[in-house]
Formats: sequence, C-alpha cells, structure tokens
Amino acid sequence: MSRRPIGVFDSGVGGLTVLKELIRRLPNERYVYFGDMARAPYGTKSKETVTRFSKQIVRFLQTLDVKAIVVACNTASAVALKAIEDGFDLPVIGVVKPGAKAAADATKTGRIGLIATEASISSGIYEEYLNKYNPDIKLIGKACPLFVSLVEEGCIEDPVTTEIARRYLSAFKGTDIDTLIMGCTHFPMIEDTIQRVAGDHVRLVNPAFETAKSTQQMLEERDMKNDNEIPVDEEAYRFYVSDSPERFRRIANLFLPLSIAGARQISIEEY
Amino acid sequence: MSRRPIGVFDSGVGGLTVLKELIRRLPNERYVYFGDMARAPYGTKSKETVTRFSKQIVRFLQTLDVKAIVVACNTASAVALKAIEDGFDLPVIGVVKPGAKAAADATKTGRIGLIATEASISSGIYEEYLNKYNPDIKLIGKACPLFVSLVEEGCIEDPVTTEIARRYLSAFKGTDIDTLIMGCTHFPMIEDTIQRVAGDHVRLVNPAFETAKSTQQMLEERDMKNDNEIPVDEEAYRFYVSDSPERFRRIANLFLPLSIAGARQISIEEY
Repeated sequence: MSRRPIGVFDSGVGGLTVLKELIRRLPNERYVYFGDMARAPYGTKSKETVTRFSKQIVRFLQTLDVKAIVVACNTASAVALKAIEDGFDLPVIGVVKPGAKAAADATKTGRIGLIATEASISSGIYEEYLNKYNPDIKLIGKACPLFVSLVEEGCIEDPVTTEIARRYLSAFKGTDIDTLIMGCTHFPMIEDTIQRVAGDHVRLVNPAFETAKSTQQMLEERDMKNDNEIPVDEEAYRFYVSDSPERFRRIANLFLPLSIAGARQISIEEY
Repeated sequence: MSRRPIGVFDSGVGGLTVLKELIRRLPNERYVYFGDMARAPYGTKSKETVTRFSKQIVRFLQTLDVKAIVVACNTASAVALKAIEDGFDLPVIGVVKPGAKAAADATKTGRIGLIATEASISSGIYEEYLNKYNPDIKLIGKACPLFVSLVEEGCIEDPVTTEIARRYLSAFKGTDIDTLIMGCTHFPMIEDTIQRVAGDHVRLVNPAFETAKSTQQMLEERDMKNDNEIPVDEEAYRFYVSDSPERFRRIANLFLPLSIAGARQISIEEY
C-alpha cells in the first residue's frame, strides 16, 4: 500500500506549488500529478461543472492505483471535495480545510481575509470551516482573478501587480484582519508583493504548506506512509495533462524546480 | 432556407462583439449563439484541443438546423477553420480571413501588426492569408494574453490597461507598421486605449466588423439571406452555454446591449 503513488490534481500548473510542498515534506512518496490544461481555469466556472471535471480526474487517477488524492486546486477543494469524498473510496485531502485551520489558529483579532477565485469565494466553504473551529471568526473575502493571469504572464515583481494588489487588498481596509489566506495556488508566487501591500501586521497563510502537513498526518494515522528511500526517476513523479504538454512544461518551470520533460497527454473526457 | 438561423460560436462571451456586428448588418436574420464557458479560454490551448471542441460545437449547432456557421472566436478561426470546412457540409465564415483581407487592403507600408492569443499567433494562419493577397506583406505578431483578463475584469479605461498596452505594443517599435489587426474578440472593447498607445498613424482593423460584411456577401451570393422582417423575440436570438448561464449573462452585458435572460445550458461533451 505504502508504495502506491499519491494522486495530486489541479486545473493546470498552479497545483505544482502544492506538489512542491508535498515532495519537501514527504520525499519518499511517489506522485502522479494531473493538470486539466484543456479546461483550465476552474475559478470562473460553476460548482456543477467543476465537480463533473474533478470526478473525471479522480476516476483517471484511480486507474493509476493511487493510494490517496490531494486536491491541489482551491476551487475544486472549495466546491467539489464533498462530492469526491462521497463518490470514491479513497482518502482525500483538499487545500481549503488545512488553510482554514491554520488561519483560525493564527488570528488574534478574529478577523480573517481570504483572497481567491470567484468560485471559491462564493462557495462559502471557508466560513463553514472557520466557524467550526471558532464561531466568532469573521471572514472577509475578495475575488482576485487578475492575479492568476499576472502570475502566468510572469509579472511577479512588477509595478502592475503591485497596483492590482493595492486595489484588491483595499477591500480589507478598516476590517482589522490580521491573517490573510492565499486561497489560490498561484498567489504564493507573488507572496512578497501581497505581504508588502497587506502590511507587516498581516500574517499570510499558504494552504500548500498546510496541506502537505495534513497529508503527512493522514498517511501516518493510516499507516500508509512510505519510509523507504525511493529513486527519483520518471516513475517517481509522473505528470499527465489534458492538453498538449508543451505549454504545461513551459509554465511549470515557473512553479517547480523539476524537469517535467515526460508529461503525457490523456483524454480526460473519457473518464 | 433563408428563415433558418445562423450559428455563431465562441469560447465564451467575446464572440458577442461579432454577433453585435452581424445583427447590425443583417437585422432580419435569426441567430443561435453558443459560448463554451465550461472550457474557455481557447487562446492558450493546443490546435488539437481547440479543433475537437469546435467540432463538438458545430455538431450541436447542426441539431438546431443552422444554415451557416460564423466562427466568432479568433483562436478557433485560426486553428480549426479548415477542419470545420472539411468536416461539415455547411458554409463557414471565420474571423481571420476577413480581418486579414481588410488589413491587406489598408496597409501602405506593407507592414502589419497582429495582437492576438498565443494560439492564434503561433498558428501562422494570418501570414498565410496576408501573403495570398500580397506576398510582400510582412506581419509582426504579439500575443497579448492579459488583455482578455483585463477586459473581463472591466478594466476598460484604466491606467493598468494602458501600461500593459504600452508593454505589448512596444513589440512594434521600429517595425513601420501602419495597420494593426485586433485579432481577439475582446480587444475592440479597449480599442480607444490601443489606438492611443499605438498612435494615430496606425489603423486598427476590427475583424468583427469585417466578418459581418463577409457573412452578408456570402448569404447574398448563395441566395440565403432573409429579407423579411422578423419579430425580435426569444426565438430570434437564442443563447446556449456549456456552463451555468449566470456568469455568461453577467459578463455578456459588457459586450452586448441585449438582454440574455434566456441563455440555456447544454452538455457540449456529448456532441
């Protein structure tokens, strides 16, 4: 069991930030990553559509005999996690719950900010988790769709990104937030800009980091962790995409210090 | 025959700029519009994927008995038009050829600029058409992916859009272009900014306008034009989408001065 790979998926390349944290924390695991490049992004799409897409992906990952699923996409975690948990007999970890837990632990003012996609914000799922930990917590959400395009264009340290961050984060003025969840896989790429604009008094939460911690915990509890060293070869990290792998490989290098030469294309609609 | 609707499709809402020009020029036609919101955008995806998606859409539009197809999406026109022409027994008009023709007619320097998606630029199809009209024409292309996000965020008259336009259009410095093709349906929405940054000596070509002209010509040549006035009701303009219609309706109002209350969702993957 422990030798079987962990399945990680995202709408595209963003989930590689989660894979990076998983590899760092669980270096002896094998991973299969799927990026739904043909239908990306998910953040502007409806719950029903994102759920349908996510289920197809889990069915595909099952054919590769994964032992667990990490939903690295915030939008899919926000809107489709329950459907995946209910529909499949596999341990599933999303990025929303670990991020919410870390934010609930960190806040002192009880006021938490959330920057994410339209779909994640309107799902209301972050409030739900946060209020389970502490019913007095108040969440202020702000959809930041342009951040994704800016990161994918490589505008990382850029006055335009700073200006857009100023506009988005002005939503938190006067709200007394002391914690801000980066609720989209792309956002940690511009963490420095977000931190500068948000101010030093605001603690940023990176759900990728928290998700890796939760995954480790879950594997240990279930005795599914692989403790033997594995050779880092093509079979240890396998990458699949729903569109031509070219663009994936190109953008992936922004996110992951790994060569992704061997990404393979599959027809996800058939699953 | 003439009473049958014209099928118009795009990856999302952008093609509504083409529909607007069609309605203006051919007010007595019925229209069926399909926006592939579940899989939008197309501009970052491969030729094979965009072709597969486009064929599914044409098969769907055929079930509504359309008399002709207008491919309102620049990317689909650039990479999939030939496959549609070859695969279906229907007159098909894309936006690339009319845009290229207008640009070839307009240029005096023989240097034409093209701003479009990654996929359109790398297809090489604009050069192909332009050089059919005049083999001496030189095309300079520049992919402008951020424009789409900026328009969809409503950043129409905005210093950030101006700054991004400055960066993108600096690709044409020293090239002596006198004509610039707005090779993406979203770009005419920021025409004023593009014109200001490009300078008065550059003539902007809007393929939506040219496509409506070509469609009229095609219908007249084939005696397929409807000349009887039609009542403008829900049946005259029908809208279909592949995702929940909500977001479509909301963004559509940026593009079209028409109420799109009746947009219907269909499962495009089944076609």
